[in-house]
Amino acid sequence: MDTSVTRWIGFRHDGAAGFGRLDGETITEFTGDLFGAPTATGRTLPLAEVTIDLPCRPSKLIALWNNFGALAEKLELARPEAPLFLIKPANTYRPSGATVIVPEAAGRALYEGELGIVIGKVDGQPARDLSEADAMAHVFGFTCINDVTSAPILKADASFTQWARAKGLDGFGPFGPVIATGLAPETLTVRTLVNGRERQNFPISDMLMPVPRLVSLLSQGMTLEPGDIIACGTSVGSGPIPKGANVEIVIDGIGTLTNRFE
Amino acid sequence: MDTSVTRWIGFRHDGAAGFGRLDGETITEFTGDLFGAPTATGRTLPLAEVTIDLPCRPSKLIALWNNFGALAEKLELARPEAPLFLIKPANTYRPSGATVIVPEAAGRALYEGELGIVIGKVDGQPARDLSEADAMAHVFGFTCINDVTSAPILKADASFTQWARAKGLDGFGPFGPVIATGLAPETLTVRTLVNGRERQNFPISDMLMPVPRLVSLLSQGMTLEPGDIIACGTSVGSGPIPKGANVEIVIDGIGTLTNRFE
Repeated sequence: MDTSVTRWIGFRHDGAAGFGRLDGETITEFTGDLFGAPTATGRTLPLAEVTIDLPCRPSKLIALWNNFGALAEKLELARPEAPLFLIKPANTYRPSGATVIVPEAAGRALYEGELGIVIGKVDGQPARDLSEADAMAHVFGFTCINDVTSAPILKADASFTQWARAKGLDGFGPFGPVIATGLAPETLTVRTLVNGRERQNFPISDMLMPVPRLVSLLSQGMTLEPGDIIACGTSVGSGPIPKGANVEIVIDGIGTLTNRFE
Repeated sequence: MDTSVTRWIGFRHDGAAGFGRLDGETITEFTGDLFGAPTATGRTLPLAEVTIDLPCRPSKLIALWNNFGALAEKLELARPEAPLFLIKPANTYRPSGATVIVPEAAGRALYEGELGIVIGKVDGQPARDLSEADAMAHVFGFTCINDVTSAPILKADASFTQWARAKGLDGFGPFGPVIATGLAPETLTVRTLVNGRERQNFPISDMLMPVPRLVSLLSQGMTLEPGDIIACGTSVGSGPIPKGANVEIVIDGIGTLTNRFE
């Protein structure tokens, strides 16, 4: 385990919400503002005795489209000049371990494994109109996301692609289990496992817009708040989620986001 | 003044946030959950002595496209089968009276006067998968919205219409000044005034999907939370906001949302 990397986890224990640093199977509880200067409470809890909760509550979840070279090539998409994105609403958020009940309205749901950039806090400097050089100071850490999508809804209307609705249904944005700080994103690899079988495996280094450029461009005219998440988009290998399947988004260095889909 | 209509306003006074019932120029302060059973504190304040704040903090602001007969006819758009929408993020929210600094990235910004449906709370019954018959019980009230849009950003990429970014810049979703309860939405008219000159004037009765149908369809698979807002879409007459202009969205029965754009 790389000791320069810190993994922050949210949890529920005895009916109360808390958060802490995850070291192996032990949580060291903290209190205060995760993005400020949280302090240790002195309590530790075994991971096995808590229910994993969201590691943060984004005011917005920005989800990128067409941000990987391999997928752009496969779909013959042009390289975009600006980040192309939609917003996933808060009703999509679910922690690792939660069962997602695919709404009847969704029809066939697709998994999309993605890296999530979690925005932090720089005192006295809102994350807006950032240069690429300043962008990384506003990145708190990284998480795993499953950017679940309803295939039938997305293309149901010929005049308007339903990005927000197809990706905005209840439970369609699970993320976690932790936010890992201190990682170099370009070294990471995203893997998606469906019932234990690997379905996606792609390097973050193939992103059309690397993290500093992405954060800088997204912050032009749009303030990124502490806890906001940028889902970096998926690459090749997205596919349907069979009913009852267990879907894992694995990013070595961060962890494994696990959700069962009913 | 129709005494069966209640107007709820948010405010800041002496550095503290509060909310209350607005009667003419007087606020009767309340405390507790606006969407539950708020109780009067016994204090009243003159409207002139407070700073108007948002009347609620939506977990999502759902913004409709192509929802008015006159505009669909003008643009030769087909009548949609389902509500077509995007999500405006929280950094767009501004109260009435706030000055909106149009970000440099936006280029030319357009005003779009709209009716906002504010979702309430029905004990023990989440606003999900609602029938049209049940939908209105989940509507708390109505507000005025200016669904500001950056024209150049919207169409900058040929492969992906940038709805979320064009409508998601800082300050591009002012709403208020109040939430009015007890109104029949089909009787309302939306007017937009730019520097005092009327630029939009259209009836809510021209909505392709009336309020109960809209709320019912949006709630299929997507839980509407208390305080969530549905911006019902605009009709004909949207246009550019000159620098320094004062834009008013007027809905008689609700009030006037006023913002200066720099």
